[in-house]
Amino acid sequence: MNFHTPNPNSELPCSARIKSLSFASKASHSGPMGFPWQSALAAVFGIGVGVLLERLKNRSGAKKAVESSSDVVKSGSFVFVGREQLEKTVASCLKAAGAPPDKAQLVAQVLVAADARGIPSHGVNRAEMYCGELKAKLIDPGADPKISSDSASAANVDGCNGLGAVVASYAMKLCIQKAKSTGIGLVVCHNSNHFGIAGFWSELALKEKLIGFAFTNTSPFLVPTRACQRAGGTNPIACYCPAEGDSFQLDMATTTVPIGKIEVCHRKGQQIPNGWGVDSTGVCSTTNPEKILKGGGLTPLGGLEETAGYKGYGLNMMVEILCAILSGCQKVGPAVPPWRVDRGTAVDYGHCFICIDPAKLLPSGDFEKALSGYLSTMRQLPAGDVERSVLVPGDPERAEEDDAAKQGVRLNRQIALGLRSLAQSLGCSGSLPAEIQALPEDASAPKHPHAV
Amino acid sequence: MNFHTPNPNSELPCSARIKSLSFASKASHSGPMGFPWQSALAAVFGIGVGVLLERLKNRSGAKKAVESSSDVVKSGSFVFVGREQLEKTVASCLKAAGAPPDKAQLVAQVLVAADARGIPSHGVNRAEMYCGELKAKLIDPGADPKISSDSASAANVDGCNGLGAVVASYAMKLCIQKAKSTGIGLVVCHNSNHFGIAGFWSELALKEKLIGFAFTNTSPFLVPTRACQRAGGTNPIACYCPAEGDSFQLDMATTTVPIGKIEVCHRKGQQIPNGWGVDSTGVCSTTNPEKILKGGGLTPLGGLEETAGYKGYGLNMMVEILCAILSGCQKVGPAVPPWRVDRGTAVDYGHCFICIDPAKLLPSGDFEKALSGYLSTMRQLPAGDVERSVLVPGDPERAEEDDAAKQGVRLNRQIALGLRSLAQSLGCSGSLPAEIQALPEDASAPKHPHAV
Repeated sequence: MNFHTPNPNSELPCSARIKSLSFASKASHSGPMGFPWQSALAAVFGIGVGVLLERLKNRSGAKKAVESSSDVVKSGSFVFVGREQLEKTVASCLKAAGAPPDKAQLVAQVLVAADARGIPSHGVNRAEMYCGELKAKLIDPGADPKISSDSASAANVDGCNGLGAVVASYAMKLCIQKAKSTGIGLVVCHNSNHFGIAGFWSELALKEKLIGFAFTNTSPFLVPTRACQRAGGTNPIACYCPAEGDSFQLDMATTTVPIGKIEVCHRKGQQIPNGWGVDSTGVCSTTNPEKILKGGGLTPLGGLEETAGYKGYGLNMMVEILCAILSGCQKVGPAVPPWRVDRGTAVDYGHCFICIDPAKLLPSGDFEKALSGYLSTMRQLPAGDVERSVLVPGDPERAEEDDAAKQGVRLNRQIALGLRSLAQSLGCSGSLPAEIQALPEDASAPKHPHAV
Repeated sequence: MNFHTPNPNSELPCSARIKSLSFASKASHSGPMGFPWQSALAAVFGIGVGVLLERLKNRSGAKKAVESSSDVVKSGSFVFVGREQLEKTVASCLKAAGAPPDKAQLVAQVLVAADARGIPSHGVNRAEMYCGELKAKLIDPGADPKISSDSASAANVDGCNGLGAVVASYAMKLCIQKAKSTGIGLVVCHNSNHFGIAGFWSELALKEKLIGFAFTNTSPFLVPTRACQRAGGTNPIACYCPAEGDSFQLDMATTTVPIGKIEVCHRKGQQIPNGWGVDSTGVCSTTNPEKILKGGGLTPLGGLEETAGYKGYGLNMMVEILCAILSGCQKVGPAVPPWRVDRGTAVDYGHCFICIDPAKLLPSGDFEKALSGYLSTMRQLPAGDVERSVLVPGDPERAEEDDAAKQGVRLNRQIALGLRSLAQSLGCSGSLPAEIQALPEDASAPKHPHAV
């Protein structure tokens, strides 16, 4: 990262800089003593202009890099669809692909919740992949999880290769019980599948006035610090904490961005910002999402080694240990199969849930009250840029969910088209919302990059 | 972050550029038609020189940033001192400043462990500050912690403003008991003080074959994403996990670097790499450690917003919530007093410890065996640079600790001189190791920047 020492000149608008140059040119005419003052001064001012031009270029470069991951993912044209209607469509597709109705409904809820919260990477975008896994018999759609070991505060759950949301729902409910009984609960799961956004499960704890953590390992997309191949998932950490009429909602991949954001950009034909991922050499940054999806990989949070990327890599390993090793998964780290329908084997994902009951540590309500105060204090901090106020984790997603309740869930047009193609291919296009059915006949969406 | 398009000219050595400029000046003399070609060409080449100068400046900035935090902190000249001898010296100083012998010994062990593990920022470097707090009666040196609430798996401990290490030791031992009994244990603490390196406490769990987490909040040094003032500590996360003859040892600040690294660079008169912190404006990066210590602040892990610094900020808040809010600290986030001897009040730090017993989830030994395999797999990943093999968290610190056992604990000369001054001022210089006593008479060390 390059930061320049502040220079008052670099703040001048472009016209002011040109004026300052022409004034200088005039002054240079008065040079005495035969020395080529005119040329010398012109050269000096030229140097100044060069410096300014270069700074200007660097500034515009910096501006490009300011595109946040949400800016990139949220750009494009949209279709707005009622949340329940969208859930019905996704559930119909999952049922057509082989899932029992109740389990299909739960998975659909989790996927649509992601879109409603402005995380389209983990939403309807993935319906095609889930259906592909079901049709390829990679997941046992009817499997119910079972406890493989149990103690007062901790349990290990065998997911029996069932739908990830079914396993997660069972495990988080068990974890909530344990926390309410003893103060803190831990439930790990093995032999599971994708469980959607981690925050969905933390939210179950939040509704019970508990602190809820949710972690999962996933298929390798991370290129660890110093390595030149993929060897870890995006391995998210979710931590939700209840406050008075408010809450703290952290849900983050331990990579710089989750792979789902790369998928969405790929589907939308967008380039991605520099620094999110590397190509198949493992060391070259790329702005082409396809290069990351096909052979490249993601950087850990923190980026390169000199900017402490090894910390994001360490957190990534921590999540892998809590999810895959502590639950006894057979496939760990780089050995986890890719999340593709041609993988020919179960992914064997592991999850970890931890719940804490603040009322076992403080008088009831004290935690929520103090947390509300802290969240307000942080939001009211003076901002460096008056147009970008200070936020706390969960603020953008909550605002998005409020909007979705009013105007419907915002679906990128390409993703909506993908859902239409999927429903058509599964013979359940009758379940499609009118807004998606009404899209032009000839519009088509690229296949999901994983659903080969 | 600024990325330049590669330009062959910018690769020219400085002398070649000057040559190219003088050639241009000669050519400009042949201008026809009365137009001031000479000045125009001089200006044009001046622009070129300006661009080159600016690029050169940016390049040297980029080069500086490649220095890793350990490179910076470990450079300089050293004194090697036996670990027990060093502990004795530090304990003598703490006793002279008012701590009871057993408690002084524990604090000394924690501080010296940091130096032995190659984390000098949290070691003897801080003895002066600890003694200053004791002498200023900011800490109750004889206080013993007590339980303020208790359940089967969770407890809240009142540190009674005692020494942080005393509080942490009590809490972690209680947490270990709870985990062994129920599978997972949680102990939070309020009204405490600095507890040294978080990993020291996780290691207590490791010795019991448990997974051990340790977290603490600290005085504000972090400038949150979008804010322009300090509002969070360095808030570390430590997670140690036992393996067969091996272990995973993550111990990281949720800022890009811990403040202790800035302190060490300040004490050694070194500049720091760009990107670690900002000056008092909150938005300008600085390479001067003094500017960060006096009014500036640290960036969260991930750096700026476009590189996902908001995730590090989110983790930082998570640690604040687990430590300060869950334990009922009266001072939270930006309200935590600065860690200075002139603060006139207790810091009221909070800690959080979580232990997990893998034997409650998997057959005994399975976790350790699987983790060993995973750690080996990661270390054997192909490296992008053959001279820098892939590591796992704890590898550098373990290597440093092995060296310390053979050759003595490595102390930076400036830090050793600081310890000598401290011991002299407290009238216990007789406890100094011979290696430190032997340093030249006139050598002196700058005061600890916090110990005003």
